[in-house]
Amino acid sequence: VLVDVALTPRDLAGVDLRERCALVVDVLRASTSIVAALDHGCPRVIPVATPAEARARARTLDGTVLLGGERDGERIPGFDLGNSPLEYTAGRVSGRPVVLTTTNGTRALLAAQAAPETGVAAFVNADAAAAWAASRHRDLVVVCAGERDGLALEDVAAAGLVVERVARLLARVRLTDAAIVARVTGERYGVDLDRLRADAAWARRLAGKGYEADLAACLTLATSTLVPWMVDGALVPFDNDAARPSRRASA
Amino acid sequence: VLVDVALTPRDLAGVDLRERCALVVDVLRASTSIVAALDHGCPRVIPVATPAEARARARTLDGTVLLGGERDGERIPGFDLGNSPLEYTAGRVSGRPVVLTTTNGTRALLAAQAAPETGVAAFVNADAAAAWAASRHRDLVVVCAGERDGLALEDVAAAGLVVERVARLLARVRLTDAAIVARVTGERYGVDLDRLRADAAWARRLAGKGYEADLAACLTLATSTLVPWMVDGALVPFDNDAARPSRRASA
Repeated sequence: VLVDVALTPRDLAGVDLRERCALVVDVLRASTSIVAALDHGCPRVIPVATPAEARARARTLDGTVLLGGERDGERIPGFDLGNSPLEYTAGRVSGRPVVLTTTNGTRALLAAQAAPETGVAAFVNADAAAAWAASRHRDLVVVCAGERDGLALEDVAAAGLVVERVARLLARVRLTDAAIVARVTGERYGVDLDRLRADAAWARRLAGKGYEADLAACLTLATSTLVPWMVDGALVPFDNDAARPSRRASA
Repeated sequence: VLVDVALTPRDLAGVDLRERCALVVDVLRASTSIVAALDHGCPRVIPVATPAEARARARTLDGTVLLGGERDGERIPGFDLGNSPLEYTAGRVSGRPVVLTTTNGTRALLAAQAAPETGVAAFVNADAAAAWAASRHRDLVVVCAGERDGLALEDVAAAGLVVERVARLLARVRLTDAAIVARVTGERYGVDLDRLRADAAWARRLAGKGYEADLAACLTLATSTLVPWMVDGALVPFDNDAARPSRRASA
């Protein structure tokens, strides 16, 4: 199994997704919020590119649907939810689908849909995402959503932790040079995720906007056993422990 | 001082070079060969894009000029020299300019010429390149030549060592997220460059072609005090120890 990492959205242009399994990483905060939503009973998260598209899509769904997302880190005017994982509580999202649009995360998800199997990874579900990827029996590419077209340190670190775990789970893996760079970064920060608060530019920016509690929620390892994965254009929960789509998904 | 790293040629597209000092890294092997050439008395290396352009440029120079370069790692038919640092001996290059074209290195150099000051870094001159960059009093971008459009692990590791050294030399530096990823990679491999023989895809490929001796020559730290830097479209030697362009350059 070949394991590759697209360190930035630009690098994704060079990756042939057709035979691959893809994992999209946007630690701060879309990936973490999507995991939180599904963990709290949201049946599906539908990623779309723009706020206008989100409103249009919501109109095609029944009245339980929620609008979520951000631009420049802030909730979009008129939306029900922003992009904080702390907002995606059972009280808000249980039983309700969410249409989500964010600056980097949903863009990467829509691009990665070209893969036959696409999942979502963050620090909070790194172990589960690695187990899911290892069970696919396909070459893997981990896609870092990054910041605009550039690199986001926290995404590379989380991608690297997933790579390191996949390499431990599978006997024969071959890492590309980019996957090795990610793994080295993941190993460095995995032992102390709090260092990302100082080192990662977007973490500093979020702290400056008053989102310290979000940083605590996002820079935490393996609190979820769930992997959001794409089925018919929506992210639904996959639970490795159940070795099949979780009951929440099929309920 | 802001320190950034373009991890791949693609990333260079996002960098505004106009006010920056640039260091181009192509460890295997163009950067190392250029350092070797200037260390052995070659007065200047002229990077060009294509073999045809190399021949045309050589015709405008006197008969002492040498043609150097590779495609797919092999010497270009009819050229005097390939891209092995071991070929650039005093016996071959002393007193003779070299017109050089390589797959990745010269392409990156030509792109990085948009910066007001452009130098060349490799493992063999990492300390010197860092000292040169730190003395420029400009923001720095280290440009990894990579392999085709993708990432080359050895270039990221060498770029990271330069970043780490610049950060030690200057009191106030700010690293971008990409520069931190490179630094972490440089710290990991800097203590044992031989690990790149197994881990870096292009190193394995060169070994398969029989270039093990080149790997030994390229994966060696700080054997040169010289920095090739761009003056009027040619790379000439700068010697930090002399704190001015070296006598070779002005001779």
